[in-house]
Amino acid sequence: MMKIGFIGSGRVASHLATALAQHYTVAQIYVRNIQKAQPLADSLGAELISEYKKFRSDLDVCIIAVSDQAIEEVIKNLTQYLPNTLIVHTSGSTSIEVLKSYHDRVGIFYPLQTFSLEREIDWKSTPLLLEAHHQADEYMLEQMAALLSDRVYLYDSAQRLSLHLAAVFACNFSNACYDIAYQIVNQQGVDFELLHPLILETAQKATQHIPHTVQTGPAKRQDHKILNLHGTMLTAMKRQDLVQIYALLSQKISDQPN
Amino acid sequence: MMKIGFIGSGRVASHLATALAQHYTVAQIYVRNIQKAQPLADSLGAELISEYKKFRSDLDVCIIAVSDQAIEEVIKNLTQYLPNTLIVHTSGSTSIEVLKSYHDRVGIFYPLQTFSLEREIDWKSTPLLLEAHHQADEYMLEQMAALLSDRVYLYDSAQRLSLHLAAVFACNFSNACYDIAYQIVNQQGVDFELLHPLILETAQKATQHIPHTVQTGPAKRQDHKILNLHGTMLTAMKRQDLVQIYALLSQKISDQPN
Repeated sequence: MMKIGFIGSGRVASHLATALAQHYTVAQIYVRNIQKAQPLADSLGAELISEYKKFRSDLDVCIIAVSDQAIEEVIKNLTQYLPNTLIVHTSGSTSIEVLKSYHDRVGIFYPLQTFSLEREIDWKSTPLLLEAHHQADEYMLEQMAALLSDRVYLYDSAQRLSLHLAAVFACNFSNACYDIAYQIVNQQGVDFELLHPLILETAQKATQHIPHTVQTGPAKRQDHKILNLHGTMLTAMKRQDLVQIYALLSQKISDQPN
Repeated sequence: MMKIGFIGSGRVASHLATALAQHYTVAQIYVRNIQKAQPLADSLGAELISEYKKFRSDLDVCIIAVSDQAIEEVIKNLTQYLPNTLIVHTSGSTSIEVLKSYHDRVGIFYPLQTFSLEREIDWKSTPLLLEAHHQADEYMLEQMAALLSDRVYLYDSAQRLSLHLAAVFACNFSNACYDIAYQIVNQQGVDFELLHPLILETAQKATQHIPHTVQTGPAKRQDHKILNLHGTMLTAMKRQDLVQIYALLSQKISDQPN
């Protein structure tokens, strides 16, 4: 059975290792802090290591699941111990070229999803974006991916980068907007739960229509009275930081043709 | 059976009139453009009128479902023809005081949801925020609301305004973020559908956790390499308009303590 190694034990590593362990042997996990990763390693029956040189040279695939900033440093030091292993990273925005500068058999295994430790991932519906330097490795990644998800795609680094950038808006920034909403109602002693149906309906709507065609609200209606009122209210709440965000996003909505 | 009149035949008016017609008689709908509203009136068996003086003086409730900007003009001209009728509006941000300046029996019936003509509303889960000048009218609105929804609340105009402001962030601005994501992938020839699972998971997560506790992404990780890369990419795409939004929302996420 194929043997997989991991670098990292964060959210993506934990979820992905757990999913892959249903089909393959997750043999080793490299972490800097052994103690923190022990429960994950135990649950997978994997060996925890904290030196690259302890990696088994017969690993079939090694998955780098660390922050983008750390990827280059990892591959630079890792390659000598795993010369024949396919080494992939899981990042949306780091190009395959970063890996290719140091190693030959390289690729990308990017799950387009938001990962939280406390939540299960619905892998079947999660798009997996793959890329590899060699065609045989691409095929190997496709087989791995198909065991997890019904939505497997081959995209190059430029396309993946645009998807990651889009994902920042669709996920990170929409969550930032939810959080601002949370802060506003919280400050007024109103329950955030009242906004849950609206949040869910807005998201569902965006998956069934082109988002700007179902845009609603005062900015869309060009209702300047309400736009001004909200600005005044944010100022009165001493949330000058939100006045600018409110104005910019309202402008964006107003500018968008129907 | 209680007789209800409507002012307006837009999204809120259409959905609300259709829902209330299951329990009450929607007797009359005032619109400026009779032709456009004919299908709605036909489906409800309601009379279409385009002059306030044609309103039946025995209407129990008249619901003003027009843009916030138009509410004051409507109540000012309407009151003389419906002196004994409870007149309510459906707006989140217009105070009850605007109605009280012109009419005695006034109130608010605000559904906290986003309405699109092409989508059904799940009324049972939609919060309905009520307010009335007189207690007897408040009670009447509560009875009406309870027929539609399991989530009926009495809130004053200040609380309702804060909910509406929060809703602009949670709904209008998250949809603006979805739309920006749509534009980005579209420009790169990538399918927006790939982002659907992410959008849905992000929304679901925000209804089960406090949003900032489940925030993810480069701004949260303070991954300056990626933040800069995305800025460069937006500039290369000639989307300077998005650079500022990206920077501001990233800053907001970075500033938020864990």
